[in-house]
Amino acid sequence: MMGKLKVYADRMSQPSRAVIIFCRYNGIDFEEIKVDISKRQQLSPQYAEVNPFQKVPAIVHGSLKLSESHAILVYLASAFPGIADHWYPTDLFKRAKINSVLDWHHSNLRYGTVNYAVNTVLGPATGVPLSPKAAAEAEKVLLSSLSKLEDIWLNGDGPFLLGGLKPSIADLSLVCEIMQLEVLDEKDRSRILSPYKKVLQWIEDTKTATNPHFEEAHNILYKAKSKFEQQRSRVAETGTEPSNKIGGHAKM
Amino acid sequence: MMGKLKVYADRMSQPSRAVIIFCRYNGIDFEEIKVDISKRQQLSPQYAEVNPFQKVPAIVHGSLKLSESHAILVYLASAFPGIADHWYPTDLFKRAKINSVLDWHHSNLRYGTVNYAVNTVLGPATGVPLSPKAAAEAEKVLLSSLSKLEDIWLNGDGPFLLGGLKPSIADLSLVCEIMQLEVLDEKDRSRILSPYKKVLQWIEDTKTATNPHFEEAHNILYKAKSKFEQQRSRVAETGTEPSNKIGGHAKM
Repeated sequence: MMGKLKVYADRMSQPSRAVIIFCRYNGIDFEEIKVDISKRQQLSPQYAEVNPFQKVPAIVHGSLKLSESHAILVYLASAFPGIADHWYPTDLFKRAKINSVLDWHHSNLRYGTVNYAVNTVLGPATGVPLSPKAAAEAEKVLLSSLSKLEDIWLNGDGPFLLGGLKPSIADLSLVCEIMQLEVLDEKDRSRILSPYKKVLQWIEDTKTATNPHFEEAHNILYKAKSKFEQQRSRVAETGTEPSNKIGGHAKM
Repeated sequence: MMGKLKVYADRMSQPSRAVIIFCRYNGIDFEEIKVDISKRQQLSPQYAEVNPFQKVPAIVHGSLKLSESHAILVYLASAFPGIADHWYPTDLFKRAKINSVLDWHHSNLRYGTVNYAVNTVLGPATGVPLSPKAAAEAEKVLLSSLSKLEDIWLNGDGPFLLGGLKPSIADLSLVCEIMQLEVLDEKDRSRILSPYKKVLQWIEDTKTATNPHFEEAHNILYKAKSKFEQQRSRVAETGTEPSNKIGGHAKM
C-alpha cells in the first residue's frame, strides 16, 4: 500500500491544527512531524524537499507531496475510506458551496487574522517587526470577514456554515483560523469578536463536535496565550518591554 | 431540468474571463449577464440577491447561487457532462495537486497581480487612488509568485502546470490572472514578465489551447490596454494628467 501518511505541521499554525484535528477525529493513522516555525525549520533544505513553498502544513502520502491546507483536507476526505459525508459532501451543490467558503477564506478571514495577529503579537517570534498601521488595515479586513460570516455564511438553519447540521472541512479550517486570536490581548480579542454572537456560538459548536481532539490540538496555543499574558502584565507593572522580543505587543 | 446556466461577469475581471472561456470552450450553454464594475453595478441591491459578496463572477444554476471563480470552475467541470478529464482530473493525486495550485494562487499570484494593477493603473476607474508604495509591495509578491511558477509549478515535462499535456482549470485561472498585466505600461510589463521564460511560453500555450475563445474573451482588455497607452502618450506629450481619471499612472 501507500505507507503511513506523514503530516508536517507546527501546531502554532492554524491550518496545521485543522489538518491534525481532521486526522485524529477521523481515525486516520498518521505520523506527525513537527516543523518548528519559531526555529525557522520550514526554511531548511530538508523541508524544501517535502514542500518547496516552505510553509506548513504539508503531507506526504505515497508519491504524493501536497501543500495548502484546504487541498490537504479535500484530499484526506476523498482518499481515506469511511470519512463521513458531512466533512466534504458528495452532493454537487453542497460541495460547490463549501468550496466557495474555502476560496473566500483566503483573501478575507485568513488575510485579516494572520495579518492582525502577526502585527500585534506574533511577529517578533518569527522575525517580523510589529506594525500598528498594518494591524489597523488587517483589523478592517478581519471585522468585515467576521461580519460576512455572521450575516451570510452562518445564515442557515443548522449550527454550522451553510446551515449544516454537522461540521465540514470549511468549519474546521475557519474556526481554527479564528482561534489564533487567542494570543491577542484579551481586550483586543473581546472587542473584535464579541459583536458576532453567531460566530461565537459556532466556534463553541465546532469545538464540541470535534473534542477532545480540538482542545488537544489547541493546547500549545493556550500555553502561548498564557505566556503572552504574563509578558504583557510584566510590561504593565514595570513599564518596560520584555528583553525577549517574543511577546512584544503593539501600541496602537 | 435546471434551466440555462447564468454567468454574471465583467470581462475586465480576470476570474470572469476564466469562467467565460471555460464555458465557451466546453460548449456549455449559458447566458452571460454583464455586471459593469466601472459603474459599480456589483454593489447594486439586485446583484446582492445573486451574490451577497458583491463581486464577479457568480453563477446561478437552478437553485444554486455560487461565487468564487475556482469553486465555479470546479462545479462546472463536475456538473456538466462531457467535460474532458484534463480540466479537473478525477485521479486523486492529480486533482489534489491542482487544488493545491488553486489555493496557492489566492495569496500569491492573485494578490500580487491585483494589487499591482490596481495601484499603478486600474484604481481610479473603480474609485481607488493609486499608491506607489502599495504597488511596490505588490510587485514583490508578484515577482516571487512568478518565480515560483517558473521554478516549481511549471517544472514538469508537459507545457502546462504540474507537467500537464493539456490545460486544467488552474492553467486557465492563473493565465487569465497574468493577462491582467496587459493594462500596464509596456516598460513595466516587460520588466516584470520577461525574466520568466517558461511562464511566457505557458501563456502562449494556454492561449493556443483555448483559442479562439481565449482571445475573444480578452478583446475588452486589449481595447483597455490601447486606451491606457493613448492616455499615457498624451500625458508624456503635454506633461499633464488626463482630465479623465481613468488611466492615470503611477509615478514610481
